[in-house]
Amino acid sequence: MQFTKMHGLGNNYIFFNLLDMPMEDQDFEQLARTVSNVNTGIGSDGIILICPSEMADFKMRIFNEDGSEGKNCGNGLRCVAKYLFDHMYATSTDFSIETLGGIVHVKVEPDKKRIVRSVTIDMGKPKLTKGMIPMKGDPEAQTINELLTIGKHSFPVTCVSMGNPHAILFVDNIDTFPLEEIGPEIEYSDLFPERVNLGIVHVKSRQEIYYRVWERGSGLTMACGTGACAAVVAATLNHLVDQYIPITVHLPGGQLTISLDENDHVWKKGGAAYICHGELVMER
Amino acid sequence: MQFTKMHGLGNNYIFFNLLDMPMEDQDFEQLARTVSNVNTGIGSDGIILICPSEMADFKMRIFNEDGSEGKNCGNGLRCVAKYLFDHMYATSTDFSIETLGGIVHVKVEPDKKRIVRSVTIDMGKPKLTKGMIPMKGDPEAQTINELLTIGKHSFPVTCVSMGNPHAILFVDNIDTFPLEEIGPEIEYSDLFPERVNLGIVHVKSRQEIYYRVWERGSGLTMACGTGACAAVVAATLNHLVDQYIPITVHLPGGQLTISLDENDHVWKKGGAAYICHGELVMER
Repeated sequence: MQFTKMHGLGNNYIFFNLLDMPMEDQDFEQLARTVSNVNTGIGSDGIILICPSEMADFKMRIFNEDGSEGKNCGNGLRCVAKYLFDHMYATSTDFSIETLGGIVHVKVEPDKKRIVRSVTIDMGKPKLTKGMIPMKGDPEAQTINELLTIGKHSFPVTCVSMGNPHAILFVDNIDTFPLEEIGPEIEYSDLFPERVNLGIVHVKSRQEIYYRVWERGSGLTMACGTGACAAVVAATLNHLVDQYIPITVHLPGGQLTISLDENDHVWKKGGAAYICHGELVMER
Repeated sequence: MQFTKMHGLGNNYIFFNLLDMPMEDQDFEQLARTVSNVNTGIGSDGIILICPSEMADFKMRIFNEDGSEGKNCGNGLRCVAKYLFDHMYATSTDFSIETLGGIVHVKVEPDKKRIVRSVTIDMGKPKLTKGMIPMKGDPEAQTINELLTIGKHSFPVTCVSMGNPHAILFVDNIDTFPLEEIGPEIEYSDLFPERVNLGIVHVKSRQEIYYRVWERGSGLTMACGTGACAAVVAATLNHLVDQYIPITVHLPGGQLTISLDENDHVWKKGGAAYICHGELVMER
């Protein structure tokens, strides 16, 4: 059974190409658990199946390391897009990929050897009203640089949903900010009925920001793609960065480039890389 | 760059065959760190190089995931032996492998398809005197079922060195024994100047024992090959198991079979398995 291991910002998956070789009677939940175990398998965050689609150009399915099927993953999606173009399945640099979370439009940028160096994903429109975040208060109002009091602390936050809710706070130094203390306080605040991710942002210039995140349910993580988008939307709403210009976002796990277009769509660009190609043996 | 990933009792390595293809100018410390990282590499406990030897039939070198070169590893050595015989480099079922810790003699057991199913390693002679363990007291005396008082507790222990020191304690139930509490107390006791591993053993029959270990410097681990040998030596010294008969040792990570021969050598038999074969890409 052939596989490819790839990663995007350190988020790593084992990819199986089911375009030429259907594996219909395979138990993918068990396969994900088996190959993701670093002790007796390859080691990964899960598996991704690259499949034909009836609704889009291609389809991907993600199974996490615990065997559960995931909706979508930006880092994994960039890897799939690179694989499809590098291996000549995609013949145009613009194509669509069906996921359990919906159809996603991607653009790949190949180099002179036709090897994809970066992939841009249409992340859709941000949602800004308290009703859509969701957040307590007037459901039609936005939360832009609004002073929130949580426990002993008060912070001016901007709230953005990119499908999941983000509270963004601008600080002078993201490394000294006590994110692991303040993050859970805001995550579990009564203000956010579905909890919230806390992102802290240092604006270095009008085209470059530094970002760290406390993810609801996960805590401190290396990279959060929707959070990087929310950070740039929040910085734009606060007039801290240039609009319609690609903004470089530095995350602990690497960097992404985020742009807003005239239709209010957010585009997220980042890298993807091969680790190895191989043949699974999984002897007992 | 071709590789094979294998494991023995869940202890997993990336193997590089340098028998046909020398890689003299490779920085193996860096390679070990790079491929062992599960996020941006394959994911493993380290790398093992399979090389020609001038002193033995073959040679292996281990580099741990932090890049440091290791002396030896029984689980990795079984994988090397299986690889060498399965791939027709070893033509006899008995051969020798040079390691940084000395030359090791191995015996492989192939099935009808000439695929190795288990590997037996000569672990040498146990050392039993307090001077050789090392342990405080008469350097010529042995410690067999001797009552030791450590802190509030007193235990009858048997001490065996298999190159590293093991204190063995026979209990009725290895699962309920508070190994994570007693282990560090004995590890750091003044009685053992170089510290000690604590193994607890339940004797199920005269050919079968259950074993758990607290490893000095590592704490609770899934499998300790020298500890399994020490457990069988200790059980033999206490007349709890049959002598010169293979004893099955159940460890949390799997099982090993340990035998003593008439020359007092300890032989350790266990499995080894392929996970995958592949080609490293490691694109940036």
